[in-house]
Amino acid sequence: MRVLYHQPLSPHSRKIRLVLSERRLPFELKLERPWDRRPEYLELNPAGTVPTLVEDDGLVVPDSGVICEYLDEAYPDTAMLGRTRMERVEVRRLVAWIDGRFAHDVTDNLIGEKYFKRAAGRGHPDSGALRMGYGHLKSHMAYFAWLAETRKWLAGNSLSLADFALAGHLSSLDYTGEIDWSEAGAAKDWYARMKSRPCFRSLLADRIAGVEPPDHYADLDF
Amino acid sequence: MRVLYHQPLSPHSRKIRLVLSERRLPFELKLERPWDRRPEYLELNPAGTVPTLVEDDGLVVPDSGVICEYLDEAYPDTAMLGRTRMERVEVRRLVAWIDGRFAHDVTDNLIGEKYFKRAAGRGHPDSGALRMGYGHLKSHMAYFAWLAETRKWLAGNSLSLADFALAGHLSSLDYTGEIDWSEAGAAKDWYARMKSRPCFRSLLADRIAGVEPPDHYADLDF
Repeated sequence: MRVLYHQPLSPHSRKIRLVLSERRLPFELKLERPWDRRPEYLELNPAGTVPTLVEDDGLVVPDSGVICEYLDEAYPDTAMLGRTRMERVEVRRLVAWIDGRFAHDVTDNLIGEKYFKRAAGRGHPDSGALRMGYGHLKSHMAYFAWLAETRKWLAGNSLSLADFALAGHLSSLDYTGEIDWSEAGAAKDWYARMKSRPCFRSLLADRIAGVEPPDHYADLDF
Repeated sequence: MRVLYHQPLSPHSRKIRLVLSERRLPFELKLERPWDRRPEYLELNPAGTVPTLVEDDGLVVPDSGVICEYLDEAYPDTAMLGRTRMERVEVRRLVAWIDGRFAHDVTDNLIGEKYFKRAAGRGHPDSGALRMGYGHLKSHMAYFAWLAETRKWLAGNSLSLADFALAGHLSSLDYTGEIDWSEAGAAKDWYARMKSRPCFRSLLADRIAGVEPPDHYADLDF
């Protein structure tokens, strides 16, 4: 059985769980604590990041960006990266924005400081980083709300990897109670549509020891 | 004519210049100062990063990672991302390492603090960031030396995007005098082979106002 090494609050892990479920590619989840730097895991993925995918035939695919490009080539029946050249540029541009800039500005500062830092035993959250994270969250959410208002899906007319990338981040941030949906505008409707897809079920059922999600987290009608 | 918006010391810009030249895809360079946040440029690339490629037919491709995936699909005659699934995973894994982790650990701390920060008028380099950059540079160079010693090219038997990605970073760092080649082991021979390729000529001829490269920078026999 295909194996995905993951961390429950890692948005990159969540993105791959969503993508695999959406594509109906069965997989088994294995919990990895990347901060432990387990030698067997570093053999699979020298960068030590999550997620890493191990295929049935033993092919090891580390890094969520590499996994998505790999899945697009290995299972070309769904066009999650778009069909035309222009669509593919726009999907990848947004994924780079979400997994690069948004991760750096927001998720690393909030989830990174509040959850991963504690889990790794590296002390308390840095208040400057938290302030920066909350400040950036507002402006990024305004951009996503604008995209959701002017397009059917984030990258255009079709559901794409951009939607799953953002859903990965927002579902982590929602689990830890960082998102104020009353201010999210059209991004809230977009997230409600994502959340009600069958691929989302296992994420919504997850519970992480010591971290309680807000009541609305698993509620489809939030 | 195809246009590439770039910054001379941006390793991501250099990677695309190398890749386009290696593939003999003619292009015109346009200098962009991303810190000016020029509205016309933000229309092309809302993230405001360099490089951005504009094709003859008007297609705008922002972000060096997106450009490389685009080029691989639009001009499939050269297999810069590798041919087999396993090769493509390894090439992309290394590119993610180089443009992600190496950039974060080393280039952002050294070129970012010493050159881009000054150019953007954001003050003096942070000494902690410089220390961190130099520390990480040593360990990363040891990894690249090991790859160069055990493989013909960085990702295996064929020249690939991984080689161009690293050449982009190391040529920027070499221009600003950060690399001690006497300690680089097999990475030095690898870089000498890269540097002597015709695609490298325009990089080696570049001179940036106010930043003099060391004597060996353009020397093929350094």
